[in-house]
Amino acid sequence: MSNDVAELARRAREASRDLALATRTAKDAALLAMADAVEGRADDVLTANAADVRRAEEAGTEAHLVDRLRLTQDRVSAMADGLRDLARLPDPVGEVVRGSTLANGLELRQVRVPFGVVGMIYEGRPNVTVDAAGICLKSGNAALLRGSSSAEQSNAALVAILRDAVAGAGLSADVVQLVPTHSRETVKELMRARGLVDVLVPRGGAGLIQSVVEESTVPVIETGVGNCHVYVDAAADLDMALAIVLNAKTDRTSVCNAAESLLVHADIADVFLPRVVPALAAAGVVVHGDERFLACDGVVAATDDDFAREYLSSDISAAVVPDIDAALAHIRRYSTGHTEAIVTGDQAAARRFVAEVDAAAVLVNASTRFTDGGEFGFGAEIGISTQKLHARGPMGLPEMTSTKYVVIGDGHVR
Amino acid sequence: MSNDVAELARRAREASRDLALATRTAKDAALLAMADAVEGRADDVLTANAADVRRAEEAGTEAHLVDRLRLTQDRVSAMADGLRDLARLPDPVGEVVRGSTLANGLELRQVRVPFGVVGMIYEGRPNVTVDAAGICLKSGNAALLRGSSSAEQSNAALVAILRDAVAGAGLSADVVQLVPTHSRETVKELMRARGLVDVLVPRGGAGLIQSVVEESTVPVIETGVGNCHVYVDAAADLDMALAIVLNAKTDRTSVCNAAESLLVHADIADVFLPRVVPALAAAGVVVHGDERFLACDGVVAATDDDFAREYLSSDISAAVVPDIDAALAHIRRYSTGHTEAIVTGDQAAARRFVAEVDAAAVLVNASTRFTDGGEFGFGAEIGISTQKLHARGPMGLPEMTSTKYVVIGDGHVR
Repeated sequence: MSNDVAELARRAREASRDLALATRTAKDAALLAMADAVEGRADDVLTANAADVRRAEEAGTEAHLVDRLRLTQDRVSAMADGLRDLARLPDPVGEVVRGSTLANGLELRQVRVPFGVVGMIYEGRPNVTVDAAGICLKSGNAALLRGSSSAEQSNAALVAILRDAVAGAGLSADVVQLVPTHSRETVKELMRARGLVDVLVPRGGAGLIQSVVEESTVPVIETGVGNCHVYVDAAADLDMALAIVLNAKTDRTSVCNAAESLLVHADIADVFLPRVVPALAAAGVVVHGDERFLACDGVVAATDDDFAREYLSSDISAAVVPDIDAALAHIRRYSTGHTEAIVTGDQAAARRFVAEVDAAAVLVNASTRFTDGGEFGFGAEIGISTQKLHARGPMGLPEMTSTKYVVIGDGHVR
Repeated sequence: MSNDVAELARRAREASRDLALATRTAKDAALLAMADAVEGRADDVLTANAADVRRAEEAGTEAHLVDRLRLTQDRVSAMADGLRDLARLPDPVGEVVRGSTLANGLELRQVRVPFGVVGMIYEGRPNVTVDAAGICLKSGNAALLRGSSSAEQSNAALVAILRDAVAGAGLSADVVQLVPTHSRETVKELMRARGLVDVLVPRGGAGLIQSVVEESTVPVIETGVGNCHVYVDAAADLDMALAIVLNAKTDRTSVCNAAESLLVHADIADVFLPRVVPALAAAGVVVHGDERFLACDGVVAATDDDFAREYLSSDISAAVVPDIDAALAHIRRYSTGHTEAIVTGDQAAARRFVAEVDAAAVLVNASTRFTDGGEFGFGAEIGISTQKLHARGPMGLPEMTSTKYVVIGDGHVR
């Protein structure tokens, strides 16, 4: 395969034209063929992955990063099942978003169409390769996949298998292409391929996303950084609050919808802190607290940086706030606009929090962990957008499309 | 007013928080107050405008640009009426885009919310100042308006009047602010105000839009460049085709939805060219034609550049194509993705054209001039997006909003 990203993008654009016209039947057949191929050639995938894992271990990569990289038979089957799930979802392409007959008799329809060519820039886990290829294909988009060099062999094996399956199903193999990882330059070329690439979706750490947002001339959908707060209001049911805080922080610490910061209304601090701090400690969580929290055993002092951090680990920042205004001000200052939750029995407080918090998702009496395409019932998720343009929150198949106005007349002139 | 754009943006963000929570009643009252104030202080506006016009004339500005700049009592009244029209339109903020109760009982709603702070960068006509301020206010967004230095005094007078009216209606004056035009630097600062400005909407010539798209780290909605084609198919009703071509080219030449290029199927060229060329000539249009067109009187030779040009004048490029495939290939090569039209009585040709042309609007048997927010029934239009992200085609009030997911539970954890 050529190393010239522009050439890959040109082939993707060419292939995207037919894909945009492909029927749901044809796309679903390709997805099922991709699923069978990934499972059927699992040995190839696991062999390639073992080489990546070995290289990472030899380079002294941290254990949790090696774990993200590692594929198993079960993980391969899960990727295949993900593709089969996609085949069952409705096709977003062709959906009429709105339509009417204008006063002059013109028929107006706004119809979903694919973007064309989608570039994905992502780190670590090779399953993103298969997920992204599947979601792009179902939404009618050619995919240019730029994974991490650490997963180079895994991704190469997967994409080779996917391309064979797509071609076997009668679509152009060029709807799925891997962008070489031999240098950072290929990321830059992708970011500058305006006119050839329609949208870039970076998925990964804050540094990756920031650099794409800063440098790309291709439109970007920013995903994922989540400094998510749980605010326990004066009127909270404290059992409920405890359960939500624990779930939000500890269900899975490495994900963007995990809670990273706890705010507690001063009126209940005396009662709630002695409950929540030991419970968090028992779950292995280090609490980085303000002065009030420091009065509890095991709490370490929080700096301003702590309140701004997305830990992605068993750590949480914590502060007592005098009232809901202070909670809202704190969130305004530190929020990354991902997910913010309030626990309260007070309708007025809930209503204010929902109205005033500026985030992709605002939750009342529920764990931050629910901000997720699967939980929201979207069936598939390409990422969680934290920007306000185009898509905000979990992005499913419709978010991977644009629209086109179709206007039908019989000789209409102005 | 401070010249520090970041400071203006900070004030806009502060003001946007209250505006986002303002009721429709409060916003409509402000819009009506703005309308009355613009009309009531028309003399101030016209005096300021006369100074801009004089300066432009002294600088030897082309007459049609001076005309764009010039305000009259009628144009002032039209601006005020535009604000009154906005007050009558439904409020997009708070609209529930979708909603459901999830299997676990969580209530999920996706609700329209304002972006926050919108930056407008535009040229020429001072009425854009009032339009943009009104559309932003109705959609709950604070507006940072960076007009052209040629309209400096007109814009300053208008914004002063609008700010007084907004404040008089009980909203913060800082929801409408003028960005100084003393240097190009203020445009750059606006483009780099990521985090303070949520969206930039450039409106103007191709050069302006290109530079904003290239340099901005704030998300951009690209508007407007239209190299719009009319393709007259073999199966076209030629009377209809003639009427559509003339309307699309000559109704108004300086607008982005005017036709700039004519493609004619070879099978009807012998009959249609002798009709369309003289008709265009009679309407004062210069035809820049390919070899086939050059056989007609008065046609000048088209270069490749002609086919790529958005003339915005009484010029049209023209070519004969052997079949619809060639028409589609030509459009694919030269289209700016704005509006493309086919004239045909052949259902299969219409269906192919609609499916395969990649543009914001695709029209069958109708003039390209219909791609317009007013014509589409949107009631207001901030511009016509030619990008695929967020909004494509005419942008009304809903396109000036983002969304937020609101999730209500009663102690839900995963």
